[in-house]
Amino acid sequence: MEKYTAAYSSRFEKIYNWMAQEGIALLVLEDTETRRDRNIRWFTGQPGDALLILSAEPERKAILIAWDVNLAKLYAAQSPVMIASYNDFDRKPRKAVAAAAQKLGIPAGSKIEIPSVTPYPVFLDYVGEMTEFDILCRNKGAASEIDKLRAVKDEEEIAIMRKAADITNKLIESIVKNVKSGKIKTEADAAMFIEVESRKQGCEGTSFATLAAGPDRSYAIHAFPNWTNAPFGGQGLSILDFGVKLGGYCTDVTITFARDLDAKQEKMVNLVEKAYKLALSMSNNKTRTRDISAAVDTLFSKSKKKMPHALGHGIGLEEHENPVVKNINDNDWILESGMIFTVEPGLYDPLLGGCRLENDILVTAAGPDVLTLAEIIRL
Amino acid sequence: MEKYTAAYSSRFEKIYNWMAQEGIALLVLEDTETRRDRNIRWFTGQPGDALLILSAEPERKAILIAWDVNLAKLYAAQSPVMIASYNDFDRKPRKAVAAAAQKLGIPAGSKIEIPSVTPYPVFLDYVGEMTEFDILCRNKGAASEIDKLRAVKDEEEIAIMRKAADITNKLIESIVKNVKSGKIKTEADAAMFIEVESRKQGCEGTSFATLAAGPDRSYAIHAFPNWTNAPFGGQGLSILDFGVKLGGYCTDVTITFARDLDAKQEKMVNLVEKAYKLALSMSNNKTRTRDISAAVDTLFSKSKKKMPHALGHGIGLEEHENPVVKNINDNDWILESGMIFTVEPGLYDPLLGGCRLENDILVTAAGPDVLTLAEIIRL
Repeated sequence: MEKYTAAYSSRFEKIYNWMAQEGIALLVLEDTETRRDRNIRWFTGQPGDALLILSAEPERKAILIAWDVNLAKLYAAQSPVMIASYNDFDRKPRKAVAAAAQKLGIPAGSKIEIPSVTPYPVFLDYVGEMTEFDILCRNKGAASEIDKLRAVKDEEEIAIMRKAADITNKLIESIVKNVKSGKIKTEADAAMFIEVESRKQGCEGTSFATLAAGPDRSYAIHAFPNWTNAPFGGQGLSILDFGVKLGGYCTDVTITFARDLDAKQEKMVNLVEKAYKLALSMSNNKTRTRDISAAVDTLFSKSKKKMPHALGHGIGLEEHENPVVKNINDNDWILESGMIFTVEPGLYDPLLGGCRLENDILVTAAGPDVLTLAEIIRL
Repeated sequence: MEKYTAAYSSRFEKIYNWMAQEGIALLVLEDTETRRDRNIRWFTGQPGDALLILSAEPERKAILIAWDVNLAKLYAAQSPVMIASYNDFDRKPRKAVAAAAQKLGIPAGSKIEIPSVTPYPVFLDYVGEMTEFDILCRNKGAASEIDKLRAVKDEEEIAIMRKAADITNKLIESIVKNVKSGKIKTEADAAMFIEVESRKQGCEGTSFATLAAGPDRSYAIHAFPNWTNAPFGGQGLSILDFGVKLGGYCTDVTITFARDLDAKQEKMVNLVEKAYKLALSMSNNKTRTRDISAAVDTLFSKSKKKMPHALGHGIGLEEHENPVVKNINDNDWILESGMIFTVEPGLYDPLLGGCRLENDILVTAAGPDVLTLAEIIRL
């Protein structure tokens, strides 16, 4: 476990340096039921339900204020933080922040940055209650700085993502075998196989609720409900979108199973495969993710098709994180070595069904390293 | 399906009347990955990933702008809304709101209310872009009005909650039988049984990720990971916290399994049962939820114990909703007929393990109607 300490310390050092540059005395991160923030896990290992308060001046110090302090002592043991209990502050974030500012000796007039997702009315409460400080809540502040840091994975993160991908690949192999043999016959069979096997392989669980959609339901981008007892893998197109979570790190893949397709369905599947290959061929260092996404949109539009979602997304502690991989004006993300993201072109039609192919790609100086091995499987 | 139309229309009428009173011309609700809002399902049946825009003047109209328009046509068919696609507005909420304001003929200078959870920086963007309108974002506005309406369930909601509770009770019976017979031996066995059986009974799935914690892990309030392959139901205390979701409506129960307890564990279990009975005896119309919660805290403190979480919470379309059931200063909720909430006293100790007992209670004029049948099971 020793080695994780170095990774955590290095993450803290980067953000302390940034705080010093920006003149931020106190930085507040919050993970709560309605506003999840995986940054707390990235800094400490604590899975959630906590406040993390960092002070850059007068001393570099961090306090983790956890809802379940027993859990925090276990998971945040390798991180350079003091641990306190939410109960000591009536389970009120603002009370805890005010107490931390006092304990850490933050001088009046200092800048305190709170999460960029803080609702406007809560921001007003902070400003009204902590009148002696300058409260900052902004998009281009700490959150986007940490986003940038997290978008490029460090060695520890790449190692764990590779392990998670290996487990995912084992699962893909077994699932394909079991669909072919008829052992997996329903959406429920597929989803339950993943739940149980991922845990047997040491995962915390799945990285999101598995989406298993047989031929009657695959036309929806995200089937609802996410899986049922409906048949899976029969004539037409079935979609299985899943991922595993290992030590907090997520994979995300989509396999489409195709059986006895008609000409229109066949054309759709071929087009998705072509789009996937095109995107992969462009997934290099220094490439704008918007350009990759635009190239796929153009390919589809030539066949009068339209993909109703983004081409992909970064992946790591969250199933959707940076870099953004969308064809939209304000997307300025450029691929760098160490980034991990999904490529997942898909097409959907109420009559034909849906088809999506998704893998997780690590950007390296030598080109894209495809970590996962999802395919379109012709049964 | 016809009958649901009346329920939806009545919900819209209540909020249109409130908008007219408050002088709100346009009301915006948003359900998105980082800010879920079940109000959209309450008004329309659409499970999520959508904007709902309501205009009170010049005409009473509602537009549902969905990410997956096929899904919306299916689920929101019984609700008095027009359906549009997010893709028509570059998948940008502010662009959709501006377009809706124009389409619905909202006069310049009108009040537009956006969600109370809108982050401060996003609020600034709205204000900066929609300069011709008065943008409101507030805690005591539409969100809390809808919260109040939703806290008291209507007939349709009580009927579906009763069905969900019946399914939950069947599951409890089977689980207890299977733990006793040894068919359920691990946390995974318990969790998977619930996943599969709930769907067989027609549920969308579970209402949250099942928490199954055997004797080694039950000391945590919410075990992490939520379930593993560890043994369940052996010597000591095992906690199983789960719920099912039927047509969007959630149940939430906790069973504790107790086997071969020592004197300290026995005392803890008895105390939790005593607290549960005390809370139930107070769960009447016109009672302040804070008083019930305070009574339980006092009971525990007499034995020098402290419950590290709230006594309960409202339940319905969300696993945690109003009324608040906490012993905190700013909790003014008073029980009313039609409210449904959980009572879930619990105690946790790193050495002894944890014990919690949780059921869902409907408030009626005749007293508490305990919908679910969880117990502490002595093996």
